[in-house]
Amino acid sequence: MANITKKVSWSSRDDDPAQGEGTPLLNGATGADRYTRQFPGGSMFRIGRLSTVDLGDQEITTEEDGVLSRPKEIPHNEKLLSLKYESLDYDNSENQLFLEEERRMSYMGFRCLEISRWVVCGLIGFLTGLIACFIDIVVEVLAGMKYSVIRQSIEKFTEGGGLSISLILWAVLNSVFVLVGAVIVAFFEPIAAGSGIPQIKCYLNGVKIPRVVRLKTLVVKVCGVISSVVGGLAVGKEGPMIHSGAVVAAGVSQGRSTSLKKDFKIFEYFRRDTEKRDFVSAGAAAGVSAAFGAPVGGVLFSLEEGASFWNQMLTWRIFFASMMSTFTLNFFMSIYHHKTGDLSNPGLINFGRFDSESVAYNFYEIPIFIIMGALGGVLGALFNVLNYWLTIFRIRYVHRPCLQVMEAMLVAAVTATVSFTMIYFSNDCQPLGADQSENYPLQLFCDDGEYNSMATTFFNTPERSVRSLFHNPPGSFNPLTLGMFTLTYFFLACWTYGLTVSAGVFIPSLLIGAAWGRLFGIFMATITSSESIWADPGKYALIGAAAQLGGIVRMTLSLTVIMVEATGNVTYGLPIMLVLMTAKIVGDYFIEGLYDIHIKLQSVPFLHWEAPATSHSRTAREVMSSPVTSFNRVETVGTVVDVLSNTSTNHNGFPVVDEPGKICGLILRSQLIVLLKHKVFVERTRSRLNQRKLQLKDFRDAYPRFPPIQSIHVSQDERECMIDMTEFMNPTPYTVPQETSLPRVFKLFRALGLRHLVVVDNENRVVGLVTRKDLARYHLGKHGLEEMQLAQT
Amino acid sequence: MANITKKVSWSSRDDDPAQGEGTPLLNGATGADRYTRQFPGGSMFRIGRLSTVDLGDQEITTEEDGVLSRPKEIPHNEKLLSLKYESLDYDNSENQLFLEEERRMSYMGFRCLEISRWVVCGLIGFLTGLIACFIDIVVEVLAGMKYSVIRQSIEKFTEGGGLSISLILWAVLNSVFVLVGAVIVAFFEPIAAGSGIPQIKCYLNGVKIPRVVRLKTLVVKVCGVISSVVGGLAVGKEGPMIHSGAVVAAGVSQGRSTSLKKDFKIFEYFRRDTEKRDFVSAGAAAGVSAAFGAPVGGVLFSLEEGASFWNQMLTWRIFFASMMSTFTLNFFMSIYHHKTGDLSNPGLINFGRFDSESVAYNFYEIPIFIIMGALGGVLGALFNVLNYWLTIFRIRYVHRPCLQVMEAMLVAAVTATVSFTMIYFSNDCQPLGADQSENYPLQLFCDDGEYNSMATTFFNTPERSVRSLFHNPPGSFNPLTLGMFTLTYFFLACWTYGLTVSAGVFIPSLLIGAAWGRLFGIFMATITSSESIWADPGKYALIGAAAQLGGIVRMTLSLTVIMVEATGNVTYGLPIMLVLMTAKIVGDYFIEGLYDIHIKLQSVPFLHWEAPATSHSRTAREVMSSPVTSFNRVETVGTVVDVLSNTSTNHNGFPVVDEPGKICGLILRSQLIVLLKHKVFVERTRSRLNQRKLQLKDFRDAYPRFPPIQSIHVSQDERECMIDMTEFMNPTPYTVPQETSLPRVFKLFRALGLRHLVVVDNENRVVGLVTRKDLARYHLGKHGLEEMQLAQT
Repeated sequence: MANITKKVSWSSRDDDPAQGEGTPLLNGATGADRYTRQFPGGSMFRIGRLSTVDLGDQEITTEEDGVLSRPKEIPHNEKLLSLKYESLDYDNSENQLFLEEERRMSYMGFRCLEISRWVVCGLIGFLTGLIACFIDIVVEVLAGMKYSVIRQSIEKFTEGGGLSISLILWAVLNSVFVLVGAVIVAFFEPIAAGSGIPQIKCYLNGVKIPRVVRLKTLVVKVCGVISSVVGGLAVGKEGPMIHSGAVVAAGVSQGRSTSLKKDFKIFEYFRRDTEKRDFVSAGAAAGVSAAFGAPVGGVLFSLEEGASFWNQMLTWRIFFASMMSTFTLNFFMSIYHHKTGDLSNPGLINFGRFDSESVAYNFYEIPIFIIMGALGGVLGALFNVLNYWLTIFRIRYVHRPCLQVMEAMLVAAVTATVSFTMIYFSNDCQPLGADQSENYPLQLFCDDGEYNSMATTFFNTPERSVRSLFHNPPGSFNPLTLGMFTLTYFFLACWTYGLTVSAGVFIPSLLIGAAWGRLFGIFMATITSSESIWADPGKYALIGAAAQLGGIVRMTLSLTVIMVEATGNVTYGLPIMLVLMTAKIVGDYFIEGLYDIHIKLQSVPFLHWEAPATSHSRTAREVMSSPVTSFNRVETVGTVVDVLSNTSTNHNGFPVVDEPGKICGLILRSQLIVLLKHKVFVERTRSRLNQRKLQLKDFRDAYPRFPPIQSIHVSQDERECMIDMTEFMNPTPYTVPQETSLPRVFKLFRALGLRHLVVVDNENRVVGLVTRKDLARYHLGKHGLEEMQLAQT
Repeated sequence: MANITKKVSWSSRDDDPAQGEGTPLLNGATGADRYTRQFPGGSMFRIGRLSTVDLGDQEITTEEDGVLSRPKEIPHNEKLLSLKYESLDYDNSENQLFLEEERRMSYMGFRCLEISRWVVCGLIGFLTGLIACFIDIVVEVLAGMKYSVIRQSIEKFTEGGGLSISLILWAVLNSVFVLVGAVIVAFFEPIAAGSGIPQIKCYLNGVKIPRVVRLKTLVVKVCGVISSVVGGLAVGKEGPMIHSGAVVAAGVSQGRSTSLKKDFKIFEYFRRDTEKRDFVSAGAAAGVSAAFGAPVGGVLFSLEEGASFWNQMLTWRIFFASMMSTFTLNFFMSIYHHKTGDLSNPGLINFGRFDSESVAYNFYEIPIFIIMGALGGVLGALFNVLNYWLTIFRIRYVHRPCLQVMEAMLVAAVTATVSFTMIYFSNDCQPLGADQSENYPLQLFCDDGEYNSMATTFFNTPERSVRSLFHNPPGSFNPLTLGMFTLTYFFLACWTYGLTVSAGVFIPSLLIGAAWGRLFGIFMATITSSESIWADPGKYALIGAAAQLGGIVRMTLSLTVIMVEATGNVTYGLPIMLVLMTAKIVGDYFIEGLYDIHIKLQSVPFLHWEAPATSHSRTAREVMSSPVTSFNRVETVGTVVDVLSNTSTNHNGFPVVDEPGKICGLILRSQLIVLLKHKVFVERTRSRLNQRKLQLKDFRDAYPRFPPIQSIHVSQDERECMIDMTEFMNPTPYTVPQETSLPRVFKLFRALGLRHLVVVDNENRVVGLVTRKDLARYHLGKHGLEEMQLAQT
């Protein structure tokens, strides 16, 4: 091991009170500074923070968790950053093997690669569209069956009495569907819970979330979302589409399935983080595109959430995948609906046609829209706060799978009961028009030729309810119905999000917003008593929906485009944008967006777009982890194995140094593992033991599930051998001097998608290593720049 | 001067045959390698390429051109890269002054900055919208007057004979208008010629084009575009809007006008390249948005052309500017049209409403669309080839302003004559419908109640003609009319682009494409004789327009979105995208896009998105310029003045080194100029001469027109003094080792928007400097990687 490495014993970790039990970890910036001390050499070394370097493969640590008997930390504290998450490496390791391959490749070779990238994107779009199709058709069929059974029961019992039997039937049906969905999620693949958008955000941001892009996750997700939508929960099937698209992309692009043990021996070039992440962006975009019929919105979503480095060709490919996805969905749905070739239903949710003529807005309505945006921000923040408390509660008390399944079933039953009660006590009867889009009009206690208006919203899939609120003619709903609906659905949706089922929050948010928006529209029409411009409450329903959704999820650019594409009307661009902006600004005043809350509660080291504004005072020297474990260019196998096996310092990247400590490369844990596995050792006499030359293919075959070090057996004789890293290390890692300001380091990380950045002194000697987690720790708190603590959970 | 600098005499330049007269410079990569030689130290130094370092302010060199009696090079050879263009510095020079300011700033200060960024973007959008409004109204009024005068004349002479007088009237009117436009462009501001899109592309790419964002340019551009459109040339007013938006942005964001000698003392923080370029992106987006009513398209245009680093907040601001711009235009146009508050005309060009019902496309039409895309690619390539030859001809023979004006007037007269002839000999009479959108229906020799169909396309502003081709009912044009129109307009438009007038190529391209697209549609309807789906030739006109435009300009993502937004119908997204893609692929097979041709002919060092595919074999050592002129931390004034005055090595960035040659900073020519101007000298006794401490404000005041070194007088005594650069240099410039591969260096440049990158050896000693031009020289030619030569013109 290089002479600059200093052994720091485990006890020095225990010195750090931040690792202690239950200590409130709010001391932040100052707390960390206390544990730095000045070394005589003039450079600052910090002890007790050794573990800030990227952690090893998470699968190792999960297995190791029981072994280490260190004090348990508070799990899921948003003031902590978890070390459990590995980072993705968006920066290619340009080692000799790689460069040789690239240099051997002809121009035609690069052309073929480019073409196969396009083919992969086309496939991603196609498959994502098919999945969306499948979900849509299955949900439609199952929900249709469920609602007609219940409707028959209600009709049967309305006159004769005994409606409680219908209620029980409804509740039981819901619970059974939800039971299935919750069981597969809770017991087979917990990562498939929720909408998956926070997870995909993290992945695109560069954090590897365990098992998030596996085939099993996709299967559970698809089945789960069907069960929860059919089970009548206040959820949508749009969010999960984004996750599904991402999984499809990760699978297709690798040309193999590790789960199915099937390797097609194609697309081997794409088996590394850089390429894979590009495809996952395309998959996420294809998902958005299929969900909302919004290909441009999909591209912008991917860019907004992920792209650190905007690349024109990549963006075109993402766009192509999006287009293919919406086209596939559209095409197959047109066949299913017996209107082959009619390509006018581009997404799972379709807001219906907003004609410019009928629902034109006027200049002086803009302030009103902005007020609605502010209202949406407040309501969104309320939603998020409630959901935050609920999530904390769930983390503490509902963490066993059976409890989670029971909670989901409870919510399903309550949803059915509340819906039934609302419909039962509602006396809002509307005449049954000839052109009603109602699929299941419930007459209940209404006169013949009339239907219960409350049932339009409750006794329906949420997508249809949204469309009714947008497009039903003025007067279809009375204000009391809308008010009651908003109130109950708000709490139901809030309770539902975070359950152990696959489900999205987009549609419930839109539905809540559309309901209060329509209410707002009716109110405006009443107080102005002018019939000309305020007449159509559908317009206000749209604005309300945008405001509520914006208030909850806080996306702006991509959401604007998604809404515009889903309405099919460009005219609404400006008001929707203003509303989303207002909702974001107002909402951010209270609390973060829903996805960010959940990301924070998972303590994910998420890197934002820019360094905190006031962080120019920090330099790389203060940010970096040091001392660093470095290797010599030629290192004994024993040392390498010992360093990799050291569970207290699960480093993931190691600077390689020449004799006087000068940086000459960077090698990754995964590369070393492959070297050890293939026993590419050199004897002390410099004769090579293993004759077979290691190729890039060996690294690609091992990607992405590199075995843990414990599974590799090295004999005592082999320990004496040497490993020559020259060929395998990245000989030109990015380095910065110690005086570099934090924003500058941050920009380098963000723009290049780095995982490790070596900090050197002016002699080019390694003095520290900056990782994503070291940067993600800094955030702007109430008292200026704050530092989060790192934790092992 | 530091000891690593090696004096290379001017004669070494003359050794380089690539600088000789008229030598075919195709030897490329091998040619350059011949002039490298191995130094004993093991590192490669290249001589004869000293001048590859960024050149000083171009305004200096222009003055110097006559002084240097070096062999004249071929100007405007696309195998050369001009050294005339400076680069923009997207990477902040984080020197001590800057860091101190940032550290002093409170969190509220950053908030205020952020708010003022939003305000500036709002202003940019508003002003761009106003300019668009102004252009539109003036064109409409003047063109209306012109056409009614000519129409009266034609009507007067149709029966009595003597139509030649009308022809002469038309030709003279056109020529007069064009004369005005051409004179102001040719004599006052030649940079205002053309659409301005190539220039803005270059600016966003990071190349400073002289005078491109000045107020004078804006004024000339606006007047020029009005004259050329009213003058009846085959031009559009959309391209110039993008340039106008950019100028507005550059002006507003700086809070002052250097031309008007007016400093509002606001937005001083934004007076640097980084911030300015961000705002110019917003301005360009606002321009697109105003031109096509396409705010999202505008954002994508800016990103596609410019953004090296995607930043979420920046994108939102760009989007806001776009929205403001289209809203402003829309709002004022609605007032002008006496329909206040009707916000349905969001752009200068409006494709009119495409209803999904009437012009739905079917699945099996997609192959036909792709064929049209290919046709568009071929026709676009033909257009570009012709225009390329024409441009070469113009560069050689039509470079005097008077000649340029005369050519423009000639084109105007010929356009009028051709139009008149076409109308005269056309016998395509159509019944005058009640709902005709024709503003100036010409009866000519048609029966009463009929109008000449050829006149719909020729006797009209191009925007209206496009709309007629899209929306006039089937049968409005007969095939012969369309064919003749396509043919003549194609050559007219090709001749017109590149004239010394302000004019865009978007609308002519759309018009040509719409004409042959409609022809294609009629043809399809004839051969299939099915009236159901092929019936509407308007649909094919739209696809044809997209194909032709795509074939000429070769944008895809942003153009798709622009077209979709301009048609106001999302359904056409997929076919338009496929068509644009096909057109691009087919067209690229023959020749580059029109804008790229013009950029290449100007020998601009344009950096593409990715390094050439096969460039992994090159390393920083081969790419860099060396030796480098470096300064010591404390340097004598005389040395600094001498280095800056050396016209043969117009370096722009200088590494600052410590005694043993180790890098410790980077200082820019502009910073040194300010230091010299304010005489911030230290005497040899280390007592400071100038008591006033130089502040960031002094640098900002001098930005962007730093005086040339010749204008700064330094006395003999002062020459003996020292300059201490510690405070002013960037202490943490990005560095790479010599072995870094070209793609890696390229990625760093592109992602961070660098201007200089210091190459160091493993002792951290400066061995070379990579600039934009060093990278832009590499491109993929027919024989693999080729190197372009650098020239002083």
